[in-house]
Amino acid sequence: MRGVVLYGPEDVRVDERARPVVVKPTDAVIRVSAACVCGSDLWPYRGEDPTSEPTPMGHEYVGVVEEIGSDVRNVKVGDFVIGSFMASDNTCETCLAGYQSLCAHVEYAGAGGAQSEYLRVPLADGTLVATPGQPDADLIPSLLAASDVLGTGWFGAVAAEAGPGKTVAVVGDGAVGLLAVLAAKQLGAERIIAMSRHESRQKLALEFGATDIVTERGDEGVAVIKELTGGYGAHSVVEAVGTQESMMQAIRSARPGGHVGYVGVSHGVELPGQALFFSGVHLHGGPAPVRRFLPELIRLVWDRAIDPGKVFDLTLPLEDAAEGYRAMHERRAIKALLLP
Amino acid sequence: MRGVVLYGPEDVRVDERARPVVVKPTDAVIRVSAACVCGSDLWPYRGEDPTSEPTPMGHEYVGVVEEIGSDVRNVKVGDFVIGSFMASDNTCETCLAGYQSLCAHVEYAGAGGAQSEYLRVPLADGTLVATPGQPDADLIPSLLAASDVLGTGWFGAVAAEAGPGKTVAVVGDGAVGLLAVLAAKQLGAERIIAMSRHESRQKLALEFGATDIVTERGDEGVAVIKELTGGYGAHSVVEAVGTQESMMQAIRSARPGGHVGYVGVSHGVELPGQALFFSGVHLHGGPAPVRRFLPELIRLVWDRAIDPGKVFDLTLPLEDAAEGYRAMHERRAIKALLLP
Repeated sequence: MRGVVLYGPEDVRVDERARPVVVKPTDAVIRVSAACVCGSDLWPYRGEDPTSEPTPMGHEYVGVVEEIGSDVRNVKVGDFVIGSFMASDNTCETCLAGYQSLCAHVEYAGAGGAQSEYLRVPLADGTLVATPGQPDADLIPSLLAASDVLGTGWFGAVAAEAGPGKTVAVVGDGAVGLLAVLAAKQLGAERIIAMSRHESRQKLALEFGATDIVTERGDEGVAVIKELTGGYGAHSVVEAVGTQESMMQAIRSARPGGHVGYVGVSHGVELPGQALFFSGVHLHGGPAPVRRFLPELIRLVWDRAIDPGKVFDLTLPLEDAAEGYRAMHERRAIKALLLP
Repeated sequence: MRGVVLYGPEDVRVDERARPVVVKPTDAVIRVSAACVCGSDLWPYRGEDPTSEPTPMGHEYVGVVEEIGSDVRNVKVGDFVIGSFMASDNTCETCLAGYQSLCAHVEYAGAGGAQSEYLRVPLADGTLVATPGQPDADLIPSLLAASDVLGTGWFGAVAAEAGPGKTVAVVGDGAVGLLAVLAAKQLGAERIIAMSRHESRQKLALEFGATDIVTERGDEGVAVIKELTGGYGAHSVVEAVGTQESMMQAIRSARPGGHVGYVGVSHGVELPGQALFFSGVHLHGGPAPVRRFLPELIRLVWDRAIDPGKVFDLTLPLEDAAEGYRAMHERRAIKALLLP
């Protein structure tokens, strides 16, 4: 089968790879209908995370179950399914508490590389959720979004306790940040401030429910947020970048007692204890437990109540994956969808 | 009047100082019935916080209102009152949200030094809470505890979401940590693990409601907490020290999705972003909004439902304040009460 492999910085290739098979009785193998390039794939693409050997890429996927292990009960061959990037048993205490991405038996669902024709998904019963039927083609991008970016933005908004009466600021205008705007809107936030300086992303943020756009960053960005909130800061701030600057911008944009939900994979961040202490904020985040939200997100997409698939502004055949990475790296595209 | 002044490391003196008067119409002056030495007073006492000039000490107090400014409505001359170490208006959005210690008009209530015969308290209406009447003498230590250590330990337990069905671990066996144990018990926690290697403190922790004592620290302490909790970690962890080691011990002792409430004043702490991200914990803390809890804590003390005053294992006349500092510094005393 064909699959995307990263060989090193800016070196993305589509290789012939072994088609995955069921290895454990809890596995499923799916035929990938659509996959995509994640903002976090850009860390190794840019060399900011090292790539020591050729690495199969991709951890977002929707597809049709092709084969299941003997212990799999919750999905069957032919089901159209969505899973999180982290495979989870969905039965341990951590899963039952809603933290499936940190499951006691967690495995990386993208280990085999989801940007490919087939994918082995471990712990299929706990990881995969079937849609109510075979989806219309136009729903596929939105269902695919639920696999990571929508679920991650949603978790950011939930972790930031976005809700009625709240002012929510979103730091980061990548697909996750934009979908955190959508999530905040769905969760009933009163005011949603998107921090973005890119016109196409601002436009999408407004479509998703942003009420204000702030183009300033750092100290100036914080000052504008304070100005917009009577000097107090936002009730809820979603951090969707993962750098020192964006984390501090998020923490400082929140009011005392406010909530910062951070979902940008942390890179080189060191939080100064004293500044955090005197900020008085709640801080919560980490790898999003997408599985917690999947049933609800699938329902919202299925009912066409939300259209998160709009973040895909570039659709390419799998063979052209390198161009998808390049376009996102150069910020010509928000997010690239790949069709095997 | 007589008052405690810190001149430099380990140099505590009791000086003749000007008796405070009402300066602003929102002030009250109280005759201090009892004050005490705080764990945080030991930072400058040890030279870990610099003392650039002779500094009046103390920020925990109970006493009788002696004089009020013309705008003060909520307390009157003769009332027995307790206030937090931070003066707050209790009317701004931050106060109304329960974060009075970070009030939009916050002032340090200990600016005049509460370890003295009289104290000027700013923003008296928002800061002071009167007891239902003049207290019996034996209640005074417990009422005094509410001014800071009880309120701070309580906030730590609330921030850690201690409650029914929860396993709560407490890092730090100073007065705040011990009172976090008491708070966790009052909040209905199922299991309370005190991390302590000092016999007298272990004893008090057990009296306050601890179900388990763990003497190990650092990696070993974390391993024991995991062992006691089926490998998952505690649901709630209170951090009551403020060092890098104690913060990391607290974060690593919590399960994914668990809650860390940190109330130790942060000293030299740098939280590694990636470890925090993948811990999946909730982190909340800061200077305790004691004022939020004062009415409830006063009621519990008044009804003799709790006896937080037990943390005072040394009572001295104000003139002997230096011995109180020394005894706490050398860990011969948990907490020293000073009688003007």
